Amino acid sequence: MTASREIHLVRRPQGMSRPEDFAVVERPVADPREGEILVQNLLMSVDPYMRPRFNADQALGEALIGGGIGRVIGSHNVKFAVGDVVRHGAGMRERFVSDGRGVSIIRPDPDLPLSVHMHALGGTGLTAYGGLLEVGRLKDGEQVFVSTAGGAVGSVAAQIAKIKGCYVVGSTGSDDKAAWLRDVAGLDAVINYKTEPLREALTAATPKGVDVYFENVGGAHLDAALTRMNPHGRIPVCGMISTYNGGGEGVRNLFLLIYGRIDMQGFVASDFGHLNAAFVSDMTTWLKDGRIKYQETVLDGFERAPEGLIGLFEGRNAGKMIIRVAE
Amino acid sequence: MTASREIHLVRRPQGMSRPEDFAVVERPVADPREGEILVQNLLMSVDPYMRPRFNADQALGEALIGGGIGRVIGSHNVKFAVGDVVRHGAGMRERFVSDGRGVSIIRPDPDLPLSVHMHALGGTGLTAYGGLLEVGRLKDGEQVFVSTAGGAVGSVAAQIAKIKGCYVVGSTGSDDKAAWLRDVAGLDAVINYKTEPLREALTAATPKGVDVYFENVGGAHLDAALTRMNPHGRIPVCGMISTYNGGGEGVRNLFLLIYGRIDMQGFVASDFGHLNAAFVSDMTTWLKDGRIKYQETVLDGFERAPEGLIGLFEGRNAGKMIIRVAE
Repeated sequence: MTASREIHLVRRPQGMSRPEDFAVVERPVADPREGEILVQNLLMSVDPYMRPRFNADQALGEALIGGGIGRVIGSHNVKFAVGDVVRHGAGMRERFVSDGRGVSIIRPDPDLPLSVHMHALGGTGLTAYGGLLEVGRLKDGEQVFVSTAGGAVGSVAAQIAKIKGCYVVGSTGSDDKAAWLRDVAGLDAVINYKTEPLREALTAATPKGVDVYFENVGGAHLDAALTRMNPHGRIPVCGMISTYNGGGEGVRNLFLLIYGRIDMQGFVASDFGHLNAAFVSDMTTWLKDGRIKYQETVLDGFERAPEGLIGLFEGRNAGKMIIRVAE
Repeated sequence: MTASREIHLVRRPQGMSRPEDFAVVERPVADPREGEILVQNLLMSVDPYMRPRFNADQALGEALIGGGIGRVIGSHNVKFAVGDVVRHGAGMRERFVSDGRGVSIIRPDPDLPLSVHMHALGGTGLTAYGGLLEVGRLKDGEQVFVSTAGGAVGSVAAQIAKIKGCYVVGSTGSDDKAAWLRDVAGLDAVINYKTEPLREALTAATPKGVDVYFENVGGAHLDAALTRMNPHGRIPVCGMISTYNGGGEGVRNLFLLIYGRIDMQGFVASDFGHLNAAFVSDMTTWLKDGRIKYQETVLDGFERAPEGLIGLFEGRNAGKMIIRVAE
């Protein structure tokens, strides 16, 4: 028997989340029984998708849903050994017992920080890799446009395209992110869609048109991109953040798909299991070579998760927001 | 030297075309010189695309643009023999001289009327065939929805899907066409989108969802179809008649592409040259077997082309509108 702290939602936020919406609660953790493991959380992910759930399926008085990386510190399950580093979706808990379902062993590279498994070497990286290379069928040297290129997926997609010798334009919503994309990630052109007229800026930035549009936004972004697509272009659809649930502006330029023979295809990261080995190999190399850059905002201390959540929703993070629970 | 009648546009129509907008004009036709052929028109196609051109690029005082089927009656071109039956885009002329560009020999089946080469065995048939089987990757027994299923392309697409053992739902804008699709073409369900609420009717008509949506309309049709797509469904985009030039309603449900992994792809018939031999073989068999049904409205007499055009724009045709110029 041990103890574990958990982050609880204690009331549903009205508008922006506030510190009083959360509580750090200590709970006993039973010893693992036959078939079970005990996991020490090391890193917890703080993600935008969490906010809407605070007013939906996130239970009050229970650990917040979420994923992270932990270390097995006790095992009665033959598939896991003490010391294994694992990826899990077990929520915001310092330590937890699991029967192993939803827990997968990862083999961290000793020359890379463990945290990269939360983004570039994790699900968001695989999403970018599979979406661009498999769904988007990217060819070396093509013309690429990535929307929300400052985001976790977009920033990796844009940099993979650069590695493949492409001309890459990204859109983002802040000057800070635009500067990072231009000066650090090395994109060829960056559009701040909040301060520039998107369609005109995209036209100016893509003199050779667009072969692959990595779609994260929908709505006006998609309409603008459709006007720039080259024949036989591809639009892998990773997200449509402006139009979820039918909201936002309707898309009016889809007729341009026809004569352009454009292929627009939705996908999710779980489609890419067959690519994982190639992805881990490529991405490990690229990260070690410094060819994939990333930003992280790491808060030290389990109890700082509410601060991380609030900061994320307020946009105070640069890159991936991570809570470090233990070394 | 011979003579030929031509159909001319003599004034640009205001609203609906009227008989006074057209004239039948006789013109001399020179004898074919070296490299040229003389063609007798047999059948002329009358198509919806012609109307907007009367107020745009159709010249006044010249033969109307258009295509048809003719017979070579004189040849100084080694590629053509007298008696060859040819498809052409030489406009509304009884007889014409050509250097052979844009003229292609067809081999009509003696057991089929020549007119089927204007629709089911012509470009509209190939569009349906390639769009459904290649772009749509239709599998036997799937669930299919075809919009404007009463049209030249849609009616063939819907019937090919039936031949492939699919469950087929069509939408159309008139009760007459709906009855033909249900009772003659044998579709499983037909929606008159002018008299029924499209989304509710489509939901009721597709209890097993939709694997392939053959898209001719866009806008509200696409939004409705997106709500019914099965995972890994395909949307071959043949047309978007409701949204050309950005008009009509914007599409709001594209986010459904993502989790459905839907593949939406534009195409045009000229992409399908590599399918032509298989198409001609299959379609000839299906037409002879009576498994592909069609409707034609044939007007006898070259001089009736204006009547055919006006009738078409007023929707008085059933199926393909054809002018028979000669036997």
